[in-house]
Amino acid sequence: MNTVAIVGNGPLENIPDLALYRDAVNIWIGADRGALTILEHKLQLDYAHGDFDSVSDIDKERIKNSANYFQEYPIEKDKTDLEIALEHALSLQPDRIYIFGATGGRLDHMLINVQLLNIVVKQQINAIIIDKQNKIEWTCPGTYTIEKDEEYEMISFLSMTEEVRGLTLTGFYYPLTNHTIKMGSTLSISNHLISNYGTFSYDKGIVLVVRSRG
Amino acid sequence: MNTVAIVGNGPLENIPDLALYRDAVNIWIGADRGALTILEHKLQLDYAHGDFDSVSDIDKERIKNSANYFQEYPIEKDKTDLEIALEHALSLQPDRIYIFGATGGRLDHMLINVQLLNIVVKQQINAIIIDKQNKIEWTCPGTYTIEKDEEYEMISFLSMTEEVRGLTLTGFYYPLTNHTIKMGSTLSISNHLISNYGTFSYDKGIVLVVRSRG
Repeated sequence: MNTVAIVGNGPLENIPDLALYRDAVNIWIGADRGALTILEHKLQLDYAHGDFDSVSDIDKERIKNSANYFQEYPIEKDKTDLEIALEHALSLQPDRIYIFGATGGRLDHMLINVQLLNIVVKQQINAIIIDKQNKIEWTCPGTYTIEKDEEYEMISFLSMTEEVRGLTLTGFYYPLTNHTIKMGSTLSISNHLISNYGTFSYDKGIVLVVRSRG
Repeated sequence: MNTVAIVGNGPLENIPDLALYRDAVNIWIGADRGALTILEHKLQLDYAHGDFDSVSDIDKERIKNSANYFQEYPIEKDKTDLEIALEHALSLQPDRIYIFGATGGRLDHMLINVQLLNIVVKQQINAIIIDKQNKIEWTCPGTYTIEKDEEYEMISFLSMTEEVRGLTLTGFYYPLTNHTIKMGSTLSISNHLISNYGTFSYDKGIVLVVRSRG
């Protein structure tokens, strides 16, 4: 499994201990101040992208000297730093992308970061936004096995399209069979597995799976 | 203008000073611990709804004794406390609904709260989620005048549908004319007005307007 991790410049208090992901991640990419966060977790900074308007000149030098690859962009650009980092990650053709530092603070950034998962999933790459309290995964229609995660035990299924058809949940405290859920439906949130494994499947629409601490 | 405010039980650090909204709001509805937040801001608690699993027994008594109307629900129910409060707000047929305490913490709750705005807007009621750093408004196709807000100066337009067609922005630092934006597009985020007023309009899709502090 070739896994790339991106660290954005979302509030530090939302970022989990990245060292826990050291063994699972092959390549670390820092977007803007996220590059500094990677260094502060004593991890290898493989690539650093950004306008670096959120770090001091001293820290920018430190990033520049530590990164295997460093690329600076103008502040006024069409893409966000995280988006540029994500495009780079995609060019490496990984199996999986973890995204840290993408939540909290400005909600326009957070919401667009969630939407960016759509682009990744379309390329058949598994993509997960992770913060201290949540793991967010964008999915396509299909059947999935879902494993218990003691740290993020609560599981919610959100419709990101007007509706999701044929939602079936097995092995969950609140099971569902061939259900249609609409955008804004709270029926399929705050669920949890009753054993170590469960499955979810659906035929049409887009489901966002959010795993969280209760 | 008949304005109802709902306060949910999102993290207190995200809730702005509610006293600033005292004059603008006619009716205050507390959802779960949000009822306590209303009392702590020395505002009139008109209605309190919830399972009250997030407050102590003493605080629950205080809410019960202070609210003009108090309704307790079982913890295991199909709807969230905020959703129940919102349905109550809708039944009052206001012109506008402000929602506080709906962001931060669990992202499944935050995302579903944003989606709930869709239900409100469909009833031709203006609905805004407000926290310390963001104001979020769900819109339908049409033409809107947008006024400068010194406190939340940055303005982003996010597509909540696969695409939004005909997006036109006037009076903005980055204007747009008849543009199509896709879900996940970062082109129309981090904009700001160049004078006191601007307009935005679009023909098809759903635009989420997020105003935030820089």
